[in-house]
Amino acid sequence: MRNLTMLTDLYQITMMYGYYKAGKHKEEAVYDLFFRKKSDETNYAICAGLDQAIDLIKSIRFEEEDITYLRSLNLFGEDFLDMLRTLRFTGNVYAVPEGTVVFPMEPLVRVHAPICEAQLIETALLNIINHQTLIATKASRVVYAAQGDAVMEFGLRRAQGPDAGIYGARASVIGGCGSTSNVLAAQMFDIPPAGTQAHSWVMSFDDELAAFRAYADTYPSNCLLLVDTYNTLKSGVPNAITVFRELREKGYKPVGIRLDSGDLAYLSKQARKMLDEAGFADARIFASSDLDEHTIADLKQQGAKIDVWGVGTRLITAHDHPSLGGVYKLAASGKPGALIPKLKVSENAWKITNPGIKKIARLYSNQDGKAIADLIMLEDEVIDESKPLTIFDPVETWKSMTVEDFNVRYLMIPVFENGRQVYETPSLMEIHKYAIAEKETFWDEFLRVKRPHIYKVDLSDNLFDLKKELLKTTKSRTK
Amino acid sequence: MRNLTMLTDLYQITMMYGYYKAGKHKEEAVYDLFFRKKSDETNYAICAGLDQAIDLIKSIRFEEEDITYLRSLNLFGEDFLDMLRTLRFTGNVYAVPEGTVVFPMEPLVRVHAPICEAQLIETALLNIINHQTLIATKASRVVYAAQGDAVMEFGLRRAQGPDAGIYGARASVIGGCGSTSNVLAAQMFDIPPAGTQAHSWVMSFDDELAAFRAYADTYPSNCLLLVDTYNTLKSGVPNAITVFRELREKGYKPVGIRLDSGDLAYLSKQARKMLDEAGFADARIFASSDLDEHTIADLKQQGAKIDVWGVGTRLITAHDHPSLGGVYKLAASGKPGALIPKLKVSENAWKITNPGIKKIARLYSNQDGKAIADLIMLEDEVIDESKPLTIFDPVETWKSMTVEDFNVRYLMIPVFENGRQVYETPSLMEIHKYAIAEKETFWDEFLRVKRPHIYKVDLSDNLFDLKKELLKTTKSRTK
Repeated sequence: MRNLTMLTDLYQITMMYGYYKAGKHKEEAVYDLFFRKKSDETNYAICAGLDQAIDLIKSIRFEEEDITYLRSLNLFGEDFLDMLRTLRFTGNVYAVPEGTVVFPMEPLVRVHAPICEAQLIETALLNIINHQTLIATKASRVVYAAQGDAVMEFGLRRAQGPDAGIYGARASVIGGCGSTSNVLAAQMFDIPPAGTQAHSWVMSFDDELAAFRAYADTYPSNCLLLVDTYNTLKSGVPNAITVFRELREKGYKPVGIRLDSGDLAYLSKQARKMLDEAGFADARIFASSDLDEHTIADLKQQGAKIDVWGVGTRLITAHDHPSLGGVYKLAASGKPGALIPKLKVSENAWKITNPGIKKIARLYSNQDGKAIADLIMLEDEVIDESKPLTIFDPVETWKSMTVEDFNVRYLMIPVFENGRQVYETPSLMEIHKYAIAEKETFWDEFLRVKRPHIYKVDLSDNLFDLKKELLKTTKSRTK
Repeated sequence: MRNLTMLTDLYQITMMYGYYKAGKHKEEAVYDLFFRKKSDETNYAICAGLDQAIDLIKSIRFEEEDITYLRSLNLFGEDFLDMLRTLRFTGNVYAVPEGTVVFPMEPLVRVHAPICEAQLIETALLNIINHQTLIATKASRVVYAAQGDAVMEFGLRRAQGPDAGIYGARASVIGGCGSTSNVLAAQMFDIPPAGTQAHSWVMSFDDELAAFRAYADTYPSNCLLLVDTYNTLKSGVPNAITVFRELREKGYKPVGIRLDSGDLAYLSKQARKMLDEAGFADARIFASSDLDEHTIADLKQQGAKIDVWGVGTRLITAHDHPSLGGVYKLAASGKPGALIPKLKVSENAWKITNPGIKKIARLYSNQDGKAIADLIMLEDEVIDESKPLTIFDPVETWKSMTVEDFNVRYLMIPVFENGRQVYETPSLMEIHKYAIAEKETFWDEFLRVKRPHIYKVDLSDNLFDLKKELLKTTKSRTK
């Protein structure tokens, strides 16, 4: 486990010292980690990164060399540095499990801890959850566009550094990918690894046929051939068919071919025809080449005969919207046992944060099991499932709806209690399956790639009233 | 030093086994790492990542648990796995030093090694160089737009995982940033760290003035105040001025204020006026809020009174073009001492690779010291500086130019010789300074953010002829 204690913004530590000097460091704070809106067209996100966030929190411990380094900055007193030596995370953490479908403004993680501890972990927590949730959501979009075809994660060489490759592969599997080219990620998280040969393999032989034969000799029962090094239809596919025939004579069944350039719709249809005519109707066509959910949807519409999609750069970087704007906002603070709800004002109604210690309720229809709406509410509130429930939009308050015959699931679970870990994340492939089941509880209209319907995330009456009240007092404070 | 041996694509290892089975694993290969074109508007890139690439190459060593894992995939023979146990990198590496200005098609790294070793390191090498070069170049664009103002890197919370934050900060400094908020990166690479307080600091006090006073008490000689928590001009700036006056009475000089939202042009001009009128003409205005080179250029044009720029998300993710398309292409292969030049064909002229073992010559004017053009040439070629040199565009061959009164610098330096490291990268701040000096050898027209002039990267006559010859034989092979 890496110690990521120093993976923080300097201002967290300058604030910690400020709290210490002001005698506020024994106070507690409650922070919510959430995103305000998605920058891509998807309204939902797939939660990911909690397992690494748990490791981060467990790793909190300043080493002696860190203390020495901080001392060298001439910003902090010795008494404070002494305190850092023994600082560990002692707070409570609630979170939404990885693979869960979540929406804007919903707390994915809630940290309730002495203010210095809560502040220290902010940056790395955001870094981890923002990254993995971003990529899991992107993968979910890509997998949606592939309409049930297998999707492989191929992006390591273009990922933003080693971790982006490793944890991006992990997040991709949470989002729905079934395999990765990344051997280290496959090893660490028990993901099926995928991969055959590159253009350089073909180029390193005297000709393409020799290259294909050498590959088939090595992997007779696992023979997938890359056919676009020279000329896909004139050379690649015919040579592949020659080698497939030789394999068939020896009793092996070829896996198929991979297209990596050119017009994938045209080439896949022609290649399909050639393979079928040669009696290889079972040979599958893999495709890669700067793919994303948009190109896959287009290719599907053009009738491309592609069975497996290899998605690289545009998935592993979430290329068109490469950041999730997750934030970590103060929801309450004060002396232990006497916390005061807090909110951050803004000119924009949707940027105003929700105060207090909160949880998320998801309402499901008893008739079809589908999710109806979410309600953000105060921790101590309970919904009576036996009675109709009227909910309303927190900004456009005239939009209301009464829900009947429903059941409630509370999404956040305890992860740390008084600094002790009380939750173990499931294996990655279990999370992968859970995320698929999660998405089945949503109507397609909320999940589609373009112009999705907006899922309702409302506030409980109590939370709404608390927010309104606090807004009044905050406004008066700024006068 | 992390062992990144397994940070590779599965196909590298399946190909390695294929080479082994085909008896080709004793052959050598030469690979070039280069990018074909930039996806952003900049034509140049700032080389970065070599130091971590060196660590990668030195770390190559399969551990017993890796062998066990690879065995479990049922793809490889025991004899091959045995060979992996003792595999180390034994080849030669040439590279362009970090901080150097480079252009499309120029080899940033050249690997000449037994084919299995060269193949194994491909993916992680690309991952590291692609990422850091991407971010260094983005930082260079941002710093260019800031026209000499200080630029701080602030992006950790939105970086794509811990490494993207850490090595992204490193790359940002190579690109021209002078400080980072990232404490771990600051510690690892001796970068000046930067940071003061967040909105949550202000919110955790009863009112803004109390929050500012508490901060000033802790850091009287280092007091920078965040003024946009409630209302920038009605509350934040007046409260900051109150506290600055109190500091002044105690003999301290305040650092300034930070704006983090709203119309930064308007707010900075108003705040400047208020600070000046209160006698704080020296107090600086820091700004942050989704900044990038485009917004900074706009704000400059609008006369914003901003002295220091904090750039986060859009820098650390290279937001508008979050990947550099660096590739690693076979340039030669064959038996040791008898390498055959290779090239990869394509329908697009600019996608055809340059064959053979190559180097990069940069021609400088003796009159003004500025770079005139680059020439990619074969390793054994030498340019005679005493004679005029005629160079021509390798695609639009009718465009030629004769250079006189020039001197030549060869950009690539030896990094590994027979597996032994022969180059030590300078300290990060030395690279930072070198990169600034590098950029001074280029006319502004090549560096500007929008519609830059295209710098000439031509081929030597010998390389051009070799390429033409190989294209002919390759074409006949695909018929």
